Amino acid sequence: MKAIKIPEKTVTRISIYLRCLEELEHEGTASVSSTQLADRFGLNSAQVRKDLACFGQFGIRGLGYYITPLRHSLEEILGLKRAWDVALVGLGNLGSALMTYKGFHEKGFKISAVFDRDPAKIDRRVEGVQVMDIGAIVPVIRKRKIKMGILAVRAAGAQAVLDALVEGGVIAVLNFAPTQLTAPDSVKIQNVDLSALLKTLSYHIAQTERPNSRTP
Amino acid sequence: MKAIKIPEKTVTRISIYLRCLEELEHEGTASVSSTQLADRFGLNSAQVRKDLACFGQFGIRGLGYYITPLRHSLEEILGLKRAWDVALVGLGNLGSALMTYKGFHEKGFKISAVFDRDPAKIDRRVEGVQVMDIGAIVPVIRKRKIKMGILAVRAAGAQAVLDALVEGGVIAVLNFAPTQLTAPDSVKIQNVDLSALLKTLSYHIAQTERPNSRTP
Repeated sequence: MKAIKIPEKTVTRISIYLRCLEELEHEGTASVSSTQLADRFGLNSAQVRKDLACFGQFGIRGLGYYITPLRHSLEEILGLKRAWDVALVGLGNLGSALMTYKGFHEKGFKISAVFDRDPAKIDRRVEGVQVMDIGAIVPVIRKRKIKMGILAVRAAGAQAVLDALVEGGVIAVLNFAPTQLTAPDSVKIQNVDLSALLKTLSYHIAQTERPNSRTP
Repeated sequence: MKAIKIPEKTVTRISIYLRCLEELEHEGTASVSSTQLADRFGLNSAQVRKDLACFGQFGIRGLGYYITPLRHSLEEILGLKRAWDVALVGLGNLGSALMTYKGFHEKGFKISAVFDRDPAKIDRRVEGVQVMDIGAIVPVIRKRKIKMGILAVRAAGAQAVLDALVEGGVIAVLNFAPTQLTAPDSVKIQNVDLSALLKTLSYHIAQTERPNSRTP
């Protein structure tokens, strides 16, 4: 496979296609056309064809795509054919919930290092993983060659933690801390601000239920 | 307070400002200027002033904003001054992890109804809440006047579940199902596709580690 850098939006769509294929495979479907795929999952069929064409000739005219081999190819493209070790920083409410989330592991992401600053939590084992002091981030990440980190810390400490992860060699970060982080261009950060999403929803309800609300 | 409908992007920013204020309040700060706020959290100070001006005259020239009263005002605007009951649908890996997440409750969101389709889970109690069959969504939501739902189901069943929530009266949805959902304009949906985010990160690592990768 040629190592071509693909735009981020394409990668996001590829991962969505992969979910659709998993769904169809789960139902026992063997092949699917781009039109069927589009109709079923609300996608754009021309976009599907264009995106998949970036990676090679997967489709067969008049038939569509064989689901299992296409799924394998997309997994290969997305780097899902191997398990990634992940470092989780922050074992508060969210970090603890994330430790119990088996979906990471199912998708090939293994939380194999956990860090917190609270002395009461350090050296405890959570889901089989020993909690370490955040001061140990750089050497541990470096030694274990961990490339991915999950930030579940408060906004105030998030940048310092990210800096340590990056210094240790992390290049991909899932950030739940409600703050904008800066990192070198070589580091990919995906932000999930659950609290902001919830507040937007709460605002929508408050707005809808408020009497005399008017649309602009 | 006048009931003016504010653009969604403003609402999102307001909820980010609120997090920043909480952070400063936590540190014992009493007042902050828009410039300090912007510098500290990587915001745009002109945007901060403009956004807050939408809701009234909060700032004091030369001093800035008093943090605690401003926080209260923003909470009021976002509808955070009351607790919202939330219905969670889907008690798989993610749903179970979300049940253990205490952050919802802290922010005034109480998961008070849980639905699943698996007979083995129905009638069990999870974190003190009895699991009900998804067939009961409409009457239960309607009776309890629940306005917010969290979808943690597979993509295949998500639209049917959303339809039931909406029929029951839900108008705000946090959707973790990896699929595009359609609902009436009066219903606000926020999507979080954790799996897609992880795959994008995984792709970034695979791409970086692959030899001979080239930038377009």
